[in-house]
Amino acid sequence: MESRFSTEIKVRFAETDAQGVAHHAAFFVWLETTRIEYLARFRGGYRELREKGIEALTLEAYVRYFAPAHFDDVLTVSARAGDLSGARFRFDYEIVRGEEPVAEGWTTHATVDSKTLRPTRIPDWLVHAIEQAEARG
Amino acid sequence: MESRFSTEIKVRFAETDAQGVAHHAAFFVWLETTRIEYLARFRGGYRELREKGIEALTLEAYVRYFAPAHFDDVLTVSARAGDLSGARFRFDYEIVRGEEPVAEGWTTHATVDSKTLRPTRIPDWLVHAIEQAEARG
Amino acid sequence: MESRFSTEIKVRFAETDAQGVAHHAAFFVWLETTRIEYLARFRGGYRELREKGIEALTLEAYVRYFAPAHFDDVLTVSARAGDLSGARFRFDYEIVRGEEPVAEGWTTHATVDSKTLRPTRIPDWLVHAIEQAEARG
Amino acid sequence: MESRFSTEIKVRFAETDAQGVAHHAAFFVWLETTRIEYLARFRGGYRELREKGIEALTLEAYVRYFAPAHFDDVLTVSARAGDLSGARFRFDYEIVRGEEPVAEGWTTHATVDSKTLRPTRIPDWLVHAIEQAEARG
Repeated sequence: MESRFSTEIKVRFAETDAQGVAHHAAFFVWLETTRIEYLARFRGGYRELREKGIEALTLEAYVRYFAPAHFDDVLTVSARAGDLSGARFRFDYEIVRGEEPVAEGWTTHATVDSKTLRPTRIPDWLVHAIEQAEARG
Repeated sequence: MESRFSTEIKVRFAETDAQGVAHHAAFFVWLETTRIEYLARFRGGYRELREKGIEALTLEAYVRYFAPAHFDDVLTVSARAGDLSGARFRFDYEIVRGEEPVAEGWTTHATVDSKTLRPTRIPDWLVHAIEQAEARG
Repeated sequence: MESRFSTEIKVRFAETDAQGVAHHAAFFVWLETTRIEYLARFRGGYRELREKGIEALTLEAYVRYFAPAHFDDVLTVSARAGDLSGARFRFDYEIVRGEEPVAEGWTTHATVDSKTLRPTRIPDWLVHAIEQAEARG
Repeated sequence: MESRFSTEIKVRFAETDAQGVAHHAAFFVWLETTRIEYLARFRGGYRELREKGIEALTLEAYVRYFAPAHFDDVLTVSARAGDLSGARFRFDYEIVRGEEPVAEGWTTHATVDSKTLRPTRIPDWLVHAIEQAEARG
């Protein structure tokens, strides 16, 4: 997975909890910012999707925690999109601190019409862009 | 201020930070939930405002912290509305743990049309309800 | 699962996002507050665990979303503890709005010594309390 | 204030609310990340302060909102430290989107011993570093 897309997150103080480490719910926010950065490489990304009246709903979210993340840590979150079919897609993630695994996770999503909330196909330009990006990976 | 409206907040673990106490930004969320509970006593409250196409924007927010709040603490947040004039209003708050002052603060707000985002008068029913509530206080 | 422990959550405005519904990461916070309420029935609950130098780490967290949750919705989160063995345990959750399923999820946890962060057995009083509570369920 | 320290914040989707804009409490988190970046230029910054057993408490926090911030907006947060005296200091902030003012605010802080929570002087190295940085500004 060396060629996988990745982005960096610096753990905010507000994201820590009284255990002295990043709160486990914060990881889901980091996965989301990673998804958004991932999609931002293609045309207008998630912002354009939303402006075109398409919402991407989260259907499932899962994280497995290996090691605590601390305030000010710089984490690398890598992501891979896949399982694109019709109105559904999936992201897989790895979070590391340098070489050390911190967490892994995955999320599944559906694209819906933002007015009717009914499923709507992922736009072709996005399907192709993702497929090409992942084929290179 | 004994007759002031008040509500209770239990500090969530997710709201604590690595200092072992509630993060200072969490207080602004508690002030908001208090405002919403305050307004919920009148007709449909904030939810009805929003459904009628009125948004209440926050113009300013201020908190002064006296003592840390800890995980699982039960805090009493009291609120008083005032300075209603046209499209603007203000809330003042006190946060205590039993008899102990924890924080105080205030917020100012404007009502706007949710489509145009232009200022719109606070509905009369709400002005009257608040004035009566505070006159009793 | 009718006799399962449950608690109520009112969706905060701060928990909504620009899709107009509760952000998916907020659900993990609700699961945590539910766990804490669940444990609060036994002696000093999670707070006592922490004061005794035991931390409960989250190892995994999963949520499946069925329907959006809106601002001001009152949700019922039910929880069941199980798979207690040594230093590990698991919670299963259901989130409903009245009769309507909104989400389900589960989390796994390990108890560790808060100084060494090494695994430490769940205290017997807690194991017995949970087993009795669930046997009744 | 052209030479003032500044950092960039990209508005996260999780920071938006059902009004479609960044929630007002998120701004306080951005001010905090800005303070931390500000201090990070001097020795070990906030992280070193904490490791040396000094905590910086927030005594007051204030934000005035001029314009909504939207998902994916890149905001520039500039900060200036001042009023250093003994165990207290203050930060003033401006948040802009390009040339457009979005918000301004200020926070006051006290340094305390992290064990006793009693006031403790700001370390000399930090006082000098801040004074030099601001003198240049």
